[in-house]
Amino acid sequence: MAHPFFERETRAPVEGPFAAEELGLAFRNVGLPLEALRYDVTPLGMHYTLSHFDVPEIDAGGFRLAVGGAVEAPLSLRVDDLKALAPPRTLRVTLECAGNGRAGMTPRYPSMPWQAGGVGTAEWTGVALRHLLALARLGPAVTELAFVGADRGFDSGVEHAFGRSLPRALALDDDVILAWEMNGRPLPPQHGAPLRLVVPGWFGMASVKWLDFIEAREQPYDGYQQAVGYHYRKQANEPGVPITHAKVKSLMAPPGIPDWYTRRRLADRGRITVTGRAWSGAGTPIERVQFAVDGEWRYALLAPAAHRYAWQRWECEWDATPGEHELACRATDASGATQPMVPEWNRAGMGNNAVQVVQVTVR
Amino acid sequence: MAHPFFERETRAPVEGPFAAEELGLAFRNVGLPLEALRYDVTPLGMHYTLSHFDVPEIDAGGFRLAVGGAVEAPLSLRVDDLKALAPPRTLRVTLECAGNGRAGMTPRYPSMPWQAGGVGTAEWTGVALRHLLALARLGPAVTELAFVGADRGFDSGVEHAFGRSLPRALALDDDVILAWEMNGRPLPPQHGAPLRLVVPGWFGMASVKWLDFIEAREQPYDGYQQAVGYHYRKQANEPGVPITHAKVKSLMAPPGIPDWYTRRRLADRGRITVTGRAWSGAGTPIERVQFAVDGEWRYALLAPAAHRYAWQRWECEWDATPGEHELACRATDASGATQPMVPEWNRAGMGNNAVQVVQVTVR
Repeated sequence: MAHPFFERETRAPVEGPFAAEELGLAFRNVGLPLEALRYDVTPLGMHYTLSHFDVPEIDAGGFRLAVGGAVEAPLSLRVDDLKALAPPRTLRVTLECAGNGRAGMTPRYPSMPWQAGGVGTAEWTGVALRHLLALARLGPAVTELAFVGADRGFDSGVEHAFGRSLPRALALDDDVILAWEMNGRPLPPQHGAPLRLVVPGWFGMASVKWLDFIEAREQPYDGYQQAVGYHYRKQANEPGVPITHAKVKSLMAPPGIPDWYTRRRLADRGRITVTGRAWSGAGTPIERVQFAVDGEWRYALLAPAAHRYAWQRWECEWDATPGEHELACRATDASGATQPMVPEWNRAGMGNNAVQVVQVTVR
Repeated sequence: MAHPFFERETRAPVEGPFAAEELGLAFRNVGLPLEALRYDVTPLGMHYTLSHFDVPEIDAGGFRLAVGGAVEAPLSLRVDDLKALAPPRTLRVTLECAGNGRAGMTPRYPSMPWQAGGVGTAEWTGVALRHLLALARLGPAVTELAFVGADRGFDSGVEHAFGRSLPRALALDDDVILAWEMNGRPLPPQHGAPLRLVVPGWFGMASVKWLDFIEAREQPYDGYQQAVGYHYRKQANEPGVPITHAKVKSLMAPPGIPDWYTRRRLADRGRITVTGRAWSGAGTPIERVQFAVDGEWRYALLAPAAHRYAWQRWECEWDATPGEHELACRATDASGATQPMVPEWNRAGMGNNAVQVVQVTVR
């Protein structure tokens, strides 16, 4: 439902310094500090979060997940009921916000102004969604499943609860889970407690938090975040391309020590092992990572993909000589997709997987 | 040690939109989303963090805390040694960053541009520092103790490890602890693992993280963060007043639901219970909290101070009528100190405890 106060034009892309609203979003949501790329599994509190509205207050004792729509047996289940459905699965998954890197697009869309840190890797424990859907018995004409959270608010004048949908076949994939644990501990509030969806290989918006209702649908889901948000568009009013899988990407932990304000780096001369992570979407393994010093590319040492949906560690030796240097890294996945040198611009600043460049002064 | 690359003037206060550097600091550090004021103890990942440099990588197995300077018995201790020193203490403590509210000062200092969320409450478990100092046997002329972390970088051209000092008498207070647990779990990396200082009643900078070295001193500590940083100053080159205790303050959880980008609030008409927290420095209890709707002040219901150093919950009923409304809250502590309506400006934007104002549209 629209309300006059919130009715207004969609925001237009801007350039230059950042608005207080953009800053406020940066405070509400957590970015991975890049030195935390050293952890295989991101410690709680350093994993990125992106919450569109307030973190809702949900009474875990009274919580019931509703399953309805075109099913033969509508359900209302406690988390304990889900735990009894099938043996739990734990998946190590790298999730990245579709808007990660938005601040690096010019002009940029006024929204969460991610620099590089909208990413993290966690171990999610839950039950495969397909067991729940089997219990509810999907009707034959069901084409997709909609997942609606308990978080509610406005975007561009439209009031809605955050919701997303998945095609039927994907929802039945064994790797799409309903999770109640993160890194072996109960799901924290800001990551979706008591229950969230985890869709490995997709950008983070698919992994709906504070899951409240699952609707089996015979028509496409028309929720705001599905029908309006999360599209690649060059212009405001074109239909655009829906955002699905994450894209191939790599990041490095900047070497040396930082300046407090500028975060510029200073390193000591000599052999430095530069490390980072690389990942792609849809469970596609990384084929190679390249590392560049002042534009000279070489191959980095890449760890094997031990977990299908988690980032892979890479490292490269650098004999650092005094002066100013520019470091960069670039991943290529098994499909042949690689990172561009400049972002592929789109209006909402989505899916920026351009090569990361880090300036380092060596003394 | 200064390095030419980083040598430059101290930054001058600015106005208007925010620089990419300010945004970068907002991403590296976590702000409390205000709806999390509902928790007595802030869940991990929602408690504020302010880390000047990179979160250091410390091998917990090889870790030793060094105690030296003017002591009779220099020490090198593992965390397990500390655990054996005396029974552990758990203290519930509200910590607030001294720079919280910096973005609300005009002009503002280019630094971490906190809006309201640089605060949180945790249960810290550790051992009283005095037991360690008794073991090391402080010399009679020791006037203060310096605490130096393992995090290193530059600020205003000066290379240093983050360090702060406390007067001898305060360091011997039973409530100043060396903590290895937060909320009943091992200290997470971004909160200072494996060991940090916790100084209840002071702004957060006193609670040194990644504690590496304690130095008993017969002269004032001259580390950058003690001698240069963390002062109230009207002008750049005056000595200024060192920052110590936190100041009396209150915050409310904004009622209603938000707009994604502006965070403006929309609430439904009728009875709303507005809740928040209030705290002060030096363990001073809160005497009263007032709540205002459109400038009309009334008394809020204030929970007793069950934990000397933790925030107190308050609530106030509001019969919300359709239209635009301005809400505000104001705490007064037992010393009579109260919150100003406008911030007390100082150059580095420290200690802003001005009254919080929240705009709400009621439908």
